[in-house]
Amino acid sequence: RCLLPLFLGLFQGALLLFFALFVTYDEPSVQAEDANLVANQVYSTFPFFQDIQVMLVVGLGLLLTFLPRYGLSALTHNFLLLNYSMQWALVLQGFIHHFQHGQVHLDLHKLLISEFAAVTVLISVGTILGRTSPCQLLVMASCEVPVYLASEWVIVNCLGVLDVGGTITIHVFSCYFGLGVSKALFWAGQKPLHPKETPTPRSDLMSLVGMLILWVFWPSFVAVLCQPGDAQHRAILNTLLAMSASAVTTVVASSLLERDGKLSPGHLQNGSLAGGVAIGAVADMALPPVAALALGSLSAMACVLGFRFLTPLLGRKFALQDQCGIHNLHGLPGILGAAASAVAVLVASKDTSGSHFSQQALCQAAGLAVAIGVSLVAGLLTGAALRLPCLARPPERLCFDDSLYFKFQDQAKSLGPGSTTEERALVLKE
Amino acid sequence: RCLLPLFLGLFQGALLLFFALFVTYDEPSVQAEDANLVANQVYSTFPFFQDIQVMLVVGLGLLLTFLPRYGLSALTHNFLLLNYSMQWALVLQGFIHHFQHGQVHLDLHKLLISEFAAVTVLISVGTILGRTSPCQLLVMASCEVPVYLASEWVIVNCLGVLDVGGTITIHVFSCYFGLGVSKALFWAGQKPLHPKETPTPRSDLMSLVGMLILWVFWPSFVAVLCQPGDAQHRAILNTLLAMSASAVTTVVASSLLERDGKLSPGHLQNGSLAGGVAIGAVADMALPPVAALALGSLSAMACVLGFRFLTPLLGRKFALQDQCGIHNLHGLPGILGAAASAVAVLVASKDTSGSHFSQQALCQAAGLAVAIGVSLVAGLLTGAALRLPCLARPPERLCFDDSLYFKFQDQAKSLGPGSTTEERALVLKE
Amino acid sequence: RCLLPLFLGLFQGALLLFFALFVTYDEPSVQAEDANLVANQVYSTFPFFQDIQVMLVVGLGLLLTFLPRYGLSALTHNFLLLNYSMQWALVLQGFIHHFQHGQVHLDLHKLLISEFAAVTVLISVGTILGRTSPCQLLVMASCEVPVYLASEWVIVNCLGVLDVGGTITIHVFSCYFGLGVSKALFWAGQKPLHPKETPTPRSDLMSLVGMLILWVFWPSFVAVLCQPGDAQHRAILNTLLAMSASAVTTVVASSLLERDGKLSPGHLQNGSLAGGVAIGAVADMALPPVAALALGSLSAMACVLGFRFLTPLLGRKFALQDQCGIHNLHGLPGILGAAASAVAVLVASKDTSGSHFSQQALCQAAGLAVAIGVSLVAGLLTGAALRLPCLARPPERLCFDDSLYFKFQDQAKSLGPGSTTEERALVLKE
Repeated sequence: RCLLPLFLGLFQGALLLFFALFVTYDEPSVQAEDANLVANQVYSTFPFFQDIQVMLVVGLGLLLTFLPRYGLSALTHNFLLLNYSMQWALVLQGFIHHFQHGQVHLDLHKLLISEFAAVTVLISVGTILGRTSPCQLLVMASCEVPVYLASEWVIVNCLGVLDVGGTITIHVFSCYFGLGVSKALFWAGQKPLHPKETPTPRSDLMSLVGMLILWVFWPSFVAVLCQPGDAQHRAILNTLLAMSASAVTTVVASSLLERDGKLSPGHLQNGSLAGGVAIGAVADMALPPVAALALGSLSAMACVLGFRFLTPLLGRKFALQDQCGIHNLHGLPGILGAAASAVAVLVASKDTSGSHFSQQALCQAAGLAVAIGVSLVAGLLTGAALRLPCLARPPERLCFDDSLYFKFQDQAKSLGPGSTTEERALVLKE
Repeated sequence: RCLLPLFLGLFQGALLLFFALFVTYDEPSVQAEDANLVANQVYSTFPFFQDIQVMLVVGLGLLLTFLPRYGLSALTHNFLLLNYSMQWALVLQGFIHHFQHGQVHLDLHKLLISEFAAVTVLISVGTILGRTSPCQLLVMASCEVPVYLASEWVIVNCLGVLDVGGTITIHVFSCYFGLGVSKALFWAGQKPLHPKETPTPRSDLMSLVGMLILWVFWPSFVAVLCQPGDAQHRAILNTLLAMSASAVTTVVASSLLERDGKLSPGHLQNGSLAGGVAIGAVADMALPPVAALALGSLSAMACVLGFRFLTPLLGRKFALQDQCGIHNLHGLPGILGAAASAVAVLVASKDTSGSHFSQQALCQAAGLAVAIGVSLVAGLLTGAALRLPCLARPPERLCFDDSLYFKFQDQAKSLGPGSTTEERALVLKE
Repeated sequence: RCLLPLFLGLFQGALLLFFALFVTYDEPSVQAEDANLVANQVYSTFPFFQDIQVMLVVGLGLLLTFLPRYGLSALTHNFLLLNYSMQWALVLQGFIHHFQHGQVHLDLHKLLISEFAAVTVLISVGTILGRTSPCQLLVMASCEVPVYLASEWVIVNCLGVLDVGGTITIHVFSCYFGLGVSKALFWAGQKPLHPKETPTPRSDLMSLVGMLILWVFWPSFVAVLCQPGDAQHRAILNTLLAMSASAVTTVVASSLLERDGKLSPGHLQNGSLAGGVAIGAVADMALPPVAALALGSLSAMACVLGFRFLTPLLGRKFALQDQCGIHNLHGLPGILGAAASAVAVLVASKDTSGSHFSQQALCQAAGLAVAIGVSLVAGLLTGAALRLPCLARPPERLCFDDSLYFKFQDQAKSLGPGSTTEERALVLKE
């Protein structure tokens, strides 16, 4: 019970120490021209940065509130993990930088890179949402961030993989890391459906609002690190097209698969975003617009089919728990996107010189393999670590329940002496 | 039941074909100067574009959730219609452009124009929300978008009407189109009040949040197409003033009209936005700031009075159904705004040359007449088409109910064998 | 009952008159260079301005919906007060400007300054939320805005206090103004806990979403008035660091203080924002990043400790009512921030010349004293004015209840003749 504040408190202390020793800001620019440059950088990056913050803090948080009695915990754990992982990524990046170049000069770009590291954690916890304690989630974040930073460095810097929107480095990586954790943590077998696990129309509505917020701001996430100018413009347009196609295709696929042509709220909450996941690897390439539309449609289809057939299959055959279905939203569309990026560079190679580009296609495939392999192994090891007895897992009866983590004021007690029976009844009904 | 996926699936196929044949991106800029220009265009347009997306997807969607058991459907239909209409408008615009200039070069500006076409659909469906099937809404969108594009071309390009914020071309047009559809569709007579039609305090709260989101981002909607610099600055300020006056005047008008000086949530949800609708036609003109305030106040008054007196009157006399009261939010303030634009150019003409401007005032009036006339006729025809038997309307008993379109997991069933009676009771209570 | 529309109606009339007589826009720029300058100013200020609007209208509004039966009122009163106070601040600023320089030229910057004046009102009402009528709140706003403008002028212009994010001028001022009002208004003694005062998990969730929106956009609030370039960049980074540290520290502090290591939703809703309040006074100074982190942690700790120990103590000893705990969120962190700014200029003085800076440290302290003193006295006087019998306070039984201010359609009545018993039951259950 005291583990969480102890752990976080020690970490905050270490963070302060690290910042005190190694981190500074840039010296103020002396020349007016430099100052202008900084101002323009702020104006060009900050709106994208804010959009991404809204996505992660509000959008993703609300998306996770589909569990009707777990909304406060989902929002809070998401918020805490984002901040913890970002700080932890800052420390790790800072250490590496410090040993290479001395003092770390903090800027908006470094914060953005740390935020991307935090995104992988926020996605991965989707596999085990509701059945884990905050301590377990923090340990998981502590393991995932360094592995992500290493694998991202290998994939982008060593292999030279093109992946501006993080399809391979973020989405595929975090999906298989999460699945690995889930497998190792819930080794014994598939859990029976928990009575508090079923969404209500009201919790589905909140979750849908979260999806819409993510949907709106996704182009900023994909385009923020693009080369300004044509490439960024193209990345924004490709993402808009892919996500628009996803939205429509999800409705088609969901109403074909469900009885009576009804829609499943879960399909909508995930399928509409699949295009954004897949487009990341090719967003800034010189593709025709039709490719973005097709990729968006295909990935939405894959996502809905995954929910309908693959998730139950994985559950039955491999006893694999995937609470939020992140394999359908991040795994399948991510692999599709990686494949699309390999095809795109192959096609481009036929138009021009050739051999250089077909080599690039191999790199894209190698990057995908590295992302899946590293994340699965690291995830399995992390999941095993989460079984340590000191990280007490919540008892099955109290899973998916806010009351385990939040102290609510007792409503019956709060009735003052002057309250009538009618008021008491009203409060209880509420 | 299979009509919806069939229709949407075929459309997605046609969209892919059209994009494959006719649509490309601009060639990348060769010179650094051009690349800089593109980057600046992205930085100056994209934040406005994102604001408008938030308005339409999140704000308008939440505004429509005032029906307590229809929230998921309202959000989803709004989202689907936005995407479908935008794609359909892209195709139509592309066709016209293709026959005139060859290949279509997609950019953010073209997407924005298509989004405006989609707005008209999202407004029009407000008249028939809850009593129509998604198929009917898609057919309605298919009819409305081409009529809008044609009428917008006549009003702006042929008549030279000044209407930077879409007061006439978007708001007035979509209002009377929607009323026409409603009249032709529910010809028989006014529907009795449906038991699920009454908002609850909770659904009113969600709807109010939607209104607030629309209210905040409305200046971006009005100013996005303005000339950068003074005109855009003025458009932003005028919209802010008009909407601020609307917000305060709505409270005054609503508490004067209701018994006991109480406020009506419906008045607040609509009246506060009336100023934004009305200001569109004059936002970038060289008016004194007091005109924006006065127009905002007047339109809020017209909107609240419309809800109190005109909507019941239209219902009784003409058996006209207007579910969301869009005639009060888009019709009356739109006409007020158009009148204000005529007056504004008349007054300006006295200051300067004269005849040119008084002619412009006639143009504004003609534009209003065209918008009302075309939209009413087209709306009536569209509404008649929606009565086709193949587009089955939902039965009266199942109107305003999410369960007709969404498959919810059965909560009682989801209780595993280990669940106690207490848990069962809890779930049922929830 | 007629007081509210009468008061607001008269005010709107006076506002129109004032704008008609004294307020204009700038003449359009003649030279292309000037027009470019205006365009750039719009692009650099408007995104910040929109972020702040979202914070105040949506974020702060939702934060106040933690009272489960008072959500509509909280949102609406917040929205009304924002608009009224902004208009009133525009009038007051305009008057002063008019007597000094003639015609007032309205621009985005003047609107922003007025919005800041409105923020003080929105914070102050947090002490008396739920137990006051809208008329009382409007009178309070009418008193607070001129006092704020005067005190801000003294603190910033006469004393030369450095306070770019409004820590002293806005947060400390509005906190003690609100406490003064509360003390004078509820003189008699501490109120017993009201049965409708206790948050439910659902209302806590909405409030948490409001906090997250405020958290995301807070850097825009702090940085909007900074010098573009390095200072603004630093202000953004410092705010991000401080708020991130606050978020983590709040979890630590809350789980240490509550039994069983559970979290209190109220602590989270407030503590996570404390860093943003405190950092305002030092955000653009040349501090090391560790200072921002430490300040964020300290202020979150102060905020949580305040909720746990100080608020009950103030209630018992001084019969002081502080409904939203604004002394913990704005008072304590504000004082911490002011102290930090004094220390920061003292430390900087040792590095450089010396005497000039140590004088600046005295100024910071003097500014804090002025803000507390002026606001407390003005708040007490305002609170006494709110006891006037004509401003009828709601009866205790109807406090914290939307039904006092909103007319809801009767659900039982709305059931048409065709409704079955089952439908009736459903509606009633809802």
